[in-house]
Amino acid sequence: MIIVLKPNLPKADENLVLKEIRRLGYKPHIMRGVARTVIGAIGDEAQHPSLESLRVLPQVESVTPVQKRFKLVSREAHPQDSTIRVGKDVVIGGPEVVVMAGPCSVESETQLMTTAEAVAKAGAKILRGGAYKPRTSPYEFQGLGVKGLKLLAKARKATGLPVITELLSEDHVDQVAEYADILQIGARNAQNFQLLIAAAKTGLPILLKRGLSMKIEEWLLAGEYVLAHGNRHVLFCERGIRTFETYTRNTLDLAAVPIVKKESHLPVVIDPSQGGGRADLVAAMCKGAVAMGADSLLIEVHPNPKEAWSDGAQQLSLEGFSKLMGELKPLIAAVGRK
Amino acid sequence: MIIVLKPNLPKADENLVLKEIRRLGYKPHIMRGVARTVIGAIGDEAQHPSLESLRVLPQVESVTPVQKRFKLVSREAHPQDSTIRVGKDVVIGGPEVVVMAGPCSVESETQLMTTAEAVAKAGAKILRGGAYKPRTSPYEFQGLGVKGLKLLAKARKATGLPVITELLSEDHVDQVAEYADILQIGARNAQNFQLLIAAAKTGLPILLKRGLSMKIEEWLLAGEYVLAHGNRHVLFCERGIRTFETYTRNTLDLAAVPIVKKESHLPVVIDPSQGGGRADLVAAMCKGAVAMGADSLLIEVHPNPKEAWSDGAQQLSLEGFSKLMGELKPLIAAVGRK
Amino acid sequence: MIIVLKPNLPKADENLVLKEIRRLGYKPHIMRGVARTVIGAIGDEAQHPSLESLRVLPQVESVTPVQKRFKLVSREAHPQDSTIRVGKDVVIGGPEVVVMAGPCSVESETQLMTTAEAVAKAGAKILRGGAYKPRTSPYEFQGLGVKGLKLLAKARKATGLPVITELLSEDHVDQVAEYADILQIGARNAQNFQLLIAAAKTGLPILLKRGLSMKIEEWLLAGEYVLAHGNRHVLFCERGIRTFETYTRNTLDLAAVPIVKKESHLPVVIDPSQGGGRADLVAAMCKGAVAMGADSLLIEVHPNPKEAWSDGAQQLSLEGFSKLMGELKPLIAAVGRK
Amino acid sequence: MIIVLKPNLPKADENLVLKEIRRLGYKPHIMRGVARTVIGAIGDEAQHPSLESLRVLPQVESVTPVQKRFKLVSREAHPQDSTIRVGKDVVIGGPEVVVMAGPCSVESETQLMTTAEAVAKAGAKILRGGAYKPRTSPYEFQGLGVKGLKLLAKARKATGLPVITELLSEDHVDQVAEYADILQIGARNAQNFQLLIAAAKTGLPILLKRGLSMKIEEWLLAGEYVLAHGNRHVLFCERGIRTFETYTRNTLDLAAVPIVKKESHLPVVIDPSQGGGRADLVAAMCKGAVAMGADSLLIEVHPNPKEAWSDGAQQLSLEGFSKLMGELKPLIAAVGRK
Repeated sequence: MIIVLKPNLPKADENLVLKEIRRLGYKPHIMRGVARTVIGAIGDEAQHPSLESLRVLPQVESVTPVQKRFKLVSREAHPQDSTIRVGKDVVIGGPEVVVMAGPCSVESETQLMTTAEAVAKAGAKILRGGAYKPRTSPYEFQGLGVKGLKLLAKARKATGLPVITELLSEDHVDQVAEYADILQIGARNAQNFQLLIAAAKTGLPILLKRGLSMKIEEWLLAGEYVLAHGNRHVLFCERGIRTFETYTRNTLDLAAVPIVKKESHLPVVIDPSQGGGRADLVAAMCKGAVAMGADSLLIEVHPNPKEAWSDGAQQLSLEGFSKLMGELKPLIAAVGRK
Repeated sequence: MIIVLKPNLPKADENLVLKEIRRLGYKPHIMRGVARTVIGAIGDEAQHPSLESLRVLPQVESVTPVQKRFKLVSREAHPQDSTIRVGKDVVIGGPEVVVMAGPCSVESETQLMTTAEAVAKAGAKILRGGAYKPRTSPYEFQGLGVKGLKLLAKARKATGLPVITELLSEDHVDQVAEYADILQIGARNAQNFQLLIAAAKTGLPILLKRGLSMKIEEWLLAGEYVLAHGNRHVLFCERGIRTFETYTRNTLDLAAVPIVKKESHLPVVIDPSQGGGRADLVAAMCKGAVAMGADSLLIEVHPNPKEAWSDGAQQLSLEGFSKLMGELKPLIAAVGRK
Repeated sequence: MIIVLKPNLPKADENLVLKEIRRLGYKPHIMRGVARTVIGAIGDEAQHPSLESLRVLPQVESVTPVQKRFKLVSREAHPQDSTIRVGKDVVIGGPEVVVMAGPCSVESETQLMTTAEAVAKAGAKILRGGAYKPRTSPYEFQGLGVKGLKLLAKARKATGLPVITELLSEDHVDQVAEYADILQIGARNAQNFQLLIAAAKTGLPILLKRGLSMKIEEWLLAGEYVLAHGNRHVLFCERGIRTFETYTRNTLDLAAVPIVKKESHLPVVIDPSQGGGRADLVAAMCKGAVAMGADSLLIEVHPNPKEAWSDGAQQLSLEGFSKLMGELKPLIAAVGRK
Repeated sequence: MIIVLKPNLPKADENLVLKEIRRLGYKPHIMRGVARTVIGAIGDEAQHPSLESLRVLPQVESVTPVQKRFKLVSREAHPQDSTIRVGKDVVIGGPEVVVMAGPCSVESETQLMTTAEAVAKAGAKILRGGAYKPRTSPYEFQGLGVKGLKLLAKARKATGLPVITELLSEDHVDQVAEYADILQIGARNAQNFQLLIAAAKTGLPILLKRGLSMKIEEWLLAGEYVLAHGNRHVLFCERGIRTFETYTRNTLDLAAVPIVKKESHLPVVIDPSQGGGRADLVAAMCKGAVAMGADSLLIEVHPNPKEAWSDGAQQLSLEGFSKLMGELKPLIAAVGRK
C-alpha cells in the first residue's frame, strides 16, 4: 500500500501513522518528496488486514493499494489462454468463435424446437433459453421453471446442442445443474456471492455476466469466487453497462474484450442482445465483438419476436440470425479464427 | 401504451400494426399529428402481454408505457404514510427520526457491546451489525456468521435495542430471521428476487437498499416483490449510487428521499456511511437527509475505526457519533420532527 | 509520482524505467515489496513534465500522482473561508445564506419586473435571469440578448438587487460585463477554458457551474483557471450531474458541498432548479443544501411557470418561492446562519 | 406531445389542462384508457412553444414529445449517405475507410515532420495535430498556438496530407481556418454553441466530438447547429463517454456507429486514443470500429510516446501505427470497404 501523508505534519503525527502501519503487520518505508511525504507499507496485502482503514486518520491524505486483488483468474497466475469444454465437442477460448443462440425465455415446445433446429442449422454450437427469468416486476412472466428445463433437455437431444440456462436461486442449483451444460449467472446476480459459490460447486462451466455497473476489477473478483471454490471453468460475458444514454438500454463496453483477455486467461463472451436491447443493433455489435477478439457470442433468437413473452424488442428472427451468421464468416476469417 | 409510427407509412403497414395491437388484447386508437401518427393502445398494461415487443416491427418508431408498473408500494394504492413497527417500541415513518447505528461487521463481543452501549446512550434506537458480509473479494473477511448473530442477540438483551442485520443467502433465512428484528437486503442483492421473496415470507420488516445503479422505478418494483408476497413492512434505504465521480465511493442521491416519499407510502432511510465511503462526510449527509425528510438514518460506528475488519474508512468513532447526535437535534426540531 | 512495476521484471528493464524517470527530472526511490516493486519519483509534479506517459512502457503497471493538481483554490493555500462581495452589500461565504432568484430566461419587462419585485420582497438578495441562453436545439428560444441585459439593469435599479446572468461567448464578454454583477458560466461551458480566462479578466465574481459529468477535481481545476488569471472571486455552483437515473433530469450531488468546502476556501452555491429539473423537488433540495452548509442558493422563479419560454417544469411560482423562503428560516437558524 | 393525466381527475381539472393545450397552439385529442387518461396534443412541436412546461400542472403526470428534434442531420431529411470532401482528394463517408493520424500535440518541427512522413507512408490520408490544447489544468502545456499551425501547414506541403486541428476559441476562428482543412471541436466544447456557429461559418468540414456525457440526441442536435448555420460538412466523432469504469479513461461507445448511421446521413469517425486513454487498446478498438461500419479513424501517433508533452499514455509509436495499418487491411476488405 502507498500512504500519502497530509502536508506539513509534525514528527509526532508522522510517528503515529508509522506505528499503526507496523501494528497492522506491514513494514513502513518513508519517502520524502517535494510536496508530500509518502509511506510505502511493505507486506502482502492479501495476508494482512487492509490498511485502507488508515484513511480515517486525520494525518492521512490517501491510501492506494499496489497489488492486484484477483489471483486465480489473472494472466499472471496462468499465462496461457484457458479453454472451456462444453458438452462433448464444443471448446470455448480456442480458435473457434462459438455462437450460443436461442430464445430469451423458453415459452413452449414448438417455440423452442423450431428455434433450436434453426439456430443449429445456421451454425450455432450451443442452445440458450431461460427457464427461470429474473424480472424487474413481480407481475411479469417468471419463466416456465422445471418444465422449461425439460424442454431444453429435449431440444438438446434433438439437435445435439449443449444447453446454457440461467441459475437465479441457490435453491435451484441441483435442479438446474441436472439439465444444463453451462450455468448462466445474470447481471443482477453478478455479486450474489452465495449463488456463485453454490454454482461453482457443481463443477459445470459458469457464464458470469458483468453486473449493470460493475467495474472490471469487481467482475474479475466475482469470477475469483468461482475459482477459489474449486471451479476453473468461468466464461466472462459482457452484456452492456448502465450509463446516462437512453437510446439503447445499455452501453455495450466492447473494450472489455481486450481488457479481460489481457488481465485474465479465461474466455470472453459478448451478449449483443442485452447489450443494446435492440434487435437492429445486434448484427453490428456481433461484428465488432468478433473483430475485437471475443471468443463467443450469446444471441437471442425467437421465431416471432413481436410475440415473445419477454424482451421481444431485442430478439432476432430465425431469418435474421441466419443472415447474421453468413455476414460474420468473412470477419471471423479476417481475424484468423473459424 | 403509446405507439409512435415511422413517418410516411403506407396504409397497409399501418393496418399491420393495428392488427398486432388488437391481437395482443388492446384496443387501438389512432391520432394523426402533423409529423407523426400516434396510436394509443387501450387496455390494462398489467393484464395483457407487453406491447413493447412491437418495437421490432419496422413500422414502429417507439413504444411508451403509460401506466406505472408498481402498485402496492405506490401512494396511489395507499395515500397515507405507512409506519413500520420494529421490536416493541420503535416506529419508523412516524414523527420520530429513528437512528440505527453500530459496526459495519460484528467482530467480537467487546467490540459489539462497547458500541451498542455507546450508541444507545447517544440516542440510537436500533443496533446495526453485519454477521454475514458480502465482500467484493473472496479473500476478505466474510463475517462471523451465526456467532455474530448470537452476539447481536446478546447486545439486544443488554441494551434493549432491536437489531438489524444483513441477509445475503436464501439458505440463511431461517437462521437470520431467528435473531434479527429487521432483515437488511444489501445493494448487491437488491434485484436478487428469490432472496426478496424468501425474506418477505418471514414477515419481518425488510430494509431494502438501493442497488448500485438502480433506477428509482426498479427499486420500487423490488419493494413490490416483497409486498406482492404478503409483507407490507418495507423500508427503502438510499446508500449512494455509482457515478463517474472518484472522490467518494458513491454519490448519495438525497433527492431519492422526496421522490420515494412522493411515489410511495413507505418510509425512507439514508445510509451516509456507504453513501460516501468517508467518515468525514457522514455528519453533513445526515443533516441533509434529516432536512429533506428522511425517516431514519443507518450509521456505521466502531470503537476504533482504523482497526475495523471491514470498511474502516467510513465508520464513525463513538465520540464522533455522540457529537453528531447532538448536532442533529436542532435540525430535527427545525423540520418539525423529534 | 508513484510508479508500480510489473512483477518479475529483469534488472535491465528496471534500470530502463529508472533512467527514464531521471531523464524527466525526477529522483527515483525504489521500494521492493512482497508482490511488486514500487518507485517513488521525487520532484515537483507541477514543475516537471508529467510522468504519466511512462504508462506506455511495457515494464510499468501503473502511475499514480501524489500531489494535488489545484493550488490557488485549495484550502492548503488559503486556510480561511473566502468571502465574495457582490454589488455593494451582499457577501457570499459569510454567515448569511444568500438566495439568488429569478426567471430562467428574461422574457419581457412585465415578467422580469414582477418576478424581481416578488423575490426581493420574499428575501432574495440577488436577481438571476438569462439574457443569452445555451439551448440543446438551434430551434429553441436563444434569449433576448442585449435587450434582456438592459431589462436586468432596469430591474436592478428598481429593486436594488445585484444581477447574475450567464456569459456564453467570448464575443459577449464586454457587453455582459457592463450589465452583470456576477458572470455565470454554465455547465456546458465549464471546461471552455478560453471563456473562463476571458471572464476572469473582467474582475467580476464568476459563478462556475459544475459540468454535466465533471469530477470535483476537474471543477476545482476549472476554477483554478480563473484564479491563475488574477481573479479570486469564484463561486462553485453544483447543479446536478448526469447519471443513469431518469426520474430527474440530473442527480444533485449535495455531498459536493462539504467536499468543496473541505478542499477549497471558496463559497459553494446549490442550484436546485437545474439540479432535478422538477419544481416539486426544489424545496426539499434547498433544505438539504442549507443543512449541509451551502453558502448560497440559485433558484428559478417565474410568474407563470407553465408559460415559460424555457425550462418551465423546473421553475417555482412567486407564491411557491415565498412559501419556500418561510420554510427555510428555521433550518438556516438551526445550522447557525442567517 | 403526449400528456398523461394523473388518475381520477375531476372533469374541471381535465378541462383546465385542455384549455392550456389549446392556448399553446395545439389541438388536444383525448384517449381514455383503463388506468389513465392520455391527451395527444396535435401540432408541430417545432413551431409551437414547448408543452413540456405543462409538467408543472398538478394535474399532469408526464409529458412525452413525439417528434424528433433534429432535422437537417436526420436520415429522414436526406436518405442517402453524405460524403465529405477534405482537401482535394480525400472523401469521408464513401467506400474508403479514411485514417487520420498524427501527434496529440504539435511539439516541434522534427516531431511533426517525422510523424507526418511515417503516417503518410503507412497509409494515413489526413494529418492530425493539436496546436491549441484544452487542458484540465492551467499549469499544463497549452499548445504551440500559431507556431503549431504553421508547422502543420509545412507538414501538409511536404506530405500532401490535409490537416485536421482543434478549434477551441471563437477568437481563433480566422487564424485556425487559415491553416486547417478540417476544424475539430473537442468533447469539452461539444455544446459550446457559439463556437459551433462560428466554426460553421468558415464553410470548412467540422469534426464534432461527442461530449463526455452527451446523449446521442444532444450530439445530433449540436451537429444540427452547424447545418442550421449553412454548413453541411459535419463528421460525428465518438471518443468515449464517461462512466463509472476506472480501468480506462473513457468507455468507447462503439454502438454509436450503427446508431448515428441509422439516424443521420453524415459520416462517423472513431477516436480510439481518447476512447480508452491507453495505447494498448487502440488496435482492438480500431478493429471493432471498422467492423461496425465507421467511416474514419482518428489515431494519435508520436515518435516517442513516453516523452510526449500531452497524453503520452494513449499515443501509438510509429512502428505501432504501421503494424496496426497492416492488421486493419483484411478487416476493411471483409466489410467490403477499402
